[in-house]
Amino acid sequence: MSGFERVQELIATISQTGRGERGVSRLALTDADRQARDIVVEEMKALGMSVTTDACCNLWGRFEGSSDRPGVVIGSHLDSVPEGGRYDGALGVACGLGATRDILAENPPPRRSLSVVVFTAEESSRFSLATIGSKAATGNLSLMDTLRFRDRQGVTLLDALRDFGGRPEQIPRDCLAPASYHSYFELHIEQGPVLDWNGEDVGIVEAIAAPTRFMLEVVGEQAHSGACPMNMRRDAMAAAAEIVLAVERAGRAESEFGTVATVGVCECFPGAMNVVPGRVVLKVDVRGIVEKSIRRACDEIKARVESVCAERGVRVNFTLYSADKPVAMDGLLARRIENVCKDLKVKYRRMPSGAGHDAMYMATLIPSALIFVPCKDGVSHNPAEAVDWRRVRSGYEVLLQTVKDIVR
Amino acid sequence: MSGFERVQELIATISQTGRGERGVSRLALTDADRQARDIVVEEMKALGMSVTTDACCNLWGRFEGSSDRPGVVIGSHLDSVPEGGRYDGALGVACGLGATRDILAENPPPRRSLSVVVFTAEESSRFSLATIGSKAATGNLSLMDTLRFRDRQGVTLLDALRDFGGRPEQIPRDCLAPASYHSYFELHIEQGPVLDWNGEDVGIVEAIAAPTRFMLEVVGEQAHSGACPMNMRRDAMAAAAEIVLAVERAGRAESEFGTVATVGVCECFPGAMNVVPGRVVLKVDVRGIVEKSIRRACDEIKARVESVCAERGVRVNFTLYSADKPVAMDGLLARRIENVCKDLKVKYRRMPSGAGHDAMYMATLIPSALIFVPCKDGVSHNPAEAVDWRRVRSGYEVLLQTVKDIVR
Repeated sequence: MSGFERVQELIATISQTGRGERGVSRLALTDADRQARDIVVEEMKALGMSVTTDACCNLWGRFEGSSDRPGVVIGSHLDSVPEGGRYDGALGVACGLGATRDILAENPPPRRSLSVVVFTAEESSRFSLATIGSKAATGNLSLMDTLRFRDRQGVTLLDALRDFGGRPEQIPRDCLAPASYHSYFELHIEQGPVLDWNGEDVGIVEAIAAPTRFMLEVVGEQAHSGACPMNMRRDAMAAAAEIVLAVERAGRAESEFGTVATVGVCECFPGAMNVVPGRVVLKVDVRGIVEKSIRRACDEIKARVESVCAERGVRVNFTLYSADKPVAMDGLLARRIENVCKDLKVKYRRMPSGAGHDAMYMATLIPSALIFVPCKDGVSHNPAEAVDWRRVRSGYEVLLQTVKDIVR
Repeated sequence: MSGFERVQELIATISQTGRGERGVSRLALTDADRQARDIVVEEMKALGMSVTTDACCNLWGRFEGSSDRPGVVIGSHLDSVPEGGRYDGALGVACGLGATRDILAENPPPRRSLSVVVFTAEESSRFSLATIGSKAATGNLSLMDTLRFRDRQGVTLLDALRDFGGRPEQIPRDCLAPASYHSYFELHIEQGPVLDWNGEDVGIVEAIAAPTRFMLEVVGEQAHSGACPMNMRRDAMAAAAEIVLAVERAGRAESEFGTVATVGVCECFPGAMNVVPGRVVLKVDVRGIVEKSIRRACDEIKARVESVCAERGVRVNFTLYSADKPVAMDGLLARRIENVCKDLKVKYRRMPSGAGHDAMYMATLIPSALIFVPCKDGVSHNPAEAVDWRRVRSGYEVLLQTVKDIVR
């Protein structure tokens, strides 16, 4: 069986784990996650790889090379959001296993070691913290973090890792040795509509956008919706609406630089039909790959917030959640991939990634590449997530050829 | 003891029932409601009134007049919202009892009968239906309603009434005989800031605004907040923000007619920081006492909704909850009250009531009057609800004198 046929089989099998009424719910470090990992472990063993699990429960399959040159890692994650799709994460793991199968089927055996990694908890759904496994493997997760983050039931990340067989207290010491690796590759669905709508089969990611995230708590004055005249109101919801539109405007003004700005959360209190809202919580996410553009967008939002406060007599409390820097992918690897695309006559695009990925942290230690394949209409984190296998095949072939050229 | 001193005592005693950590939580037909009613029953008996309870658990105290002329009813309610204040409803009941005390203390005894009524469940907090008791007493509550409305625990209104000692199946037949009553009076805190901020002690309500309420479900397209470029979005939250501002504009444009428009509920789905919202639910409340003005405001909102749909490629589903007509209070009673205000040199204002009250339904059968007294900053449905007793005294004296003139 070809590696790519096996990719499709693996996706079909893995997507049975955590399957609910709507889509796939395979939250990190749950039984469903375990079942999916078991499928991968079996495949790794069948391919003759040695299987290990690190302190943060990242799952590593490794096939030793015939030389001791630094190896290649292909990876992604198996955990999903609640009611997510079949391809987010799992496709990258399956393609890693498929590529390994295809490379090992040919002679001579690879000179470099070839590893496939499943990172723990890439999605923030369970612990409100994303890319936990890749953070840990690259020395970016502290023991404090494992105590601080909890799921909705109050289980700490520390306890969840321990129950899953991890050794969380060893995380600070169980970090990748950069010199042992040549490169890291991740294939992922785009989770946006750009490739699909432009008829391109491969996206070569140049940089991963970093979100600047903040909370705006708009405080006005709660009042009776019937008894309080319009000119005596300090309506927190109307003030918040102006801010929502200001966020959108700021994103649009910076869109030529690839910056986007979103209000994803809007909570209105007390939330009764007969009460003028006294308090609204907005959560804002601004991302891009050009730092100055991100800053300009945030500055514009803040300026508008100030004028709304002045005009409407409301108060806005600002809480910064994060202000990370964009992460560049390795330029030489991107050029290699681009050349392979040209050789294979695959339509590609160099592009930013708006979403975060494990490659973001791997890139801090090891030259890293992120390859996007299109998903239908960009729909992801959704049971309707879908791919066109003919187009995924192009991405798979590009990954395979690029890695093959390196490990041979 | 004077009637007014007794009013203050009664409020102090009643506000001990249903008292929690924050304010008064005396939901309809609960133990706390029972305790408050017991205090009122005791007072009624002490005043020599006969006490009865009708099919819908409305509590009636009645002092027979020396003639058989139609009587006067003074009333309000004792139930509260969760974490509400001490005065909403209870003040009207206490003032009814106080006025009865003062009138009975003088000679000759009243020629007309004098009744004090405590209406069941004026607040919609427990059963999502307001003014249940006054609806029932005036033939505006069907047996179907008592089955249809439930509290959060799933208890039907029917069962709650039955458990409280009511006879819900008799509600359709246990209706007031209009010919037996001359007039209905209700004194209530304004629940808005108009009297307080204008330094007036009495509001003579000319009409009670009726809410037109509807739900707007804005359906856009859920997308990844990082991966979906600004120009490919159909952001339901940004579209909703435009509608929120349109609602406010419509209310402001009609404010010279006393019309107000409010978005009190805004729910954003899925509500995650990294997802462009795909769906937003807005609940809109438009009220006024001029029907044409209410209609114009609603039409303007709908026109803007349509243009937002066209401009942004979103869809909006419209669900009408209610479109009641404003209810006028009796003009002759209002003039009587106005004259008393002038005699007593009380600063007053003729005004609409934005909030609904039991007087709304009583007015469908019996000439009715609603007297507002100021509450601090208009704050109500809130533990911080407060009154200035010196100003309430003016309202009480106006109520007392007006009723005295009628029953003598």
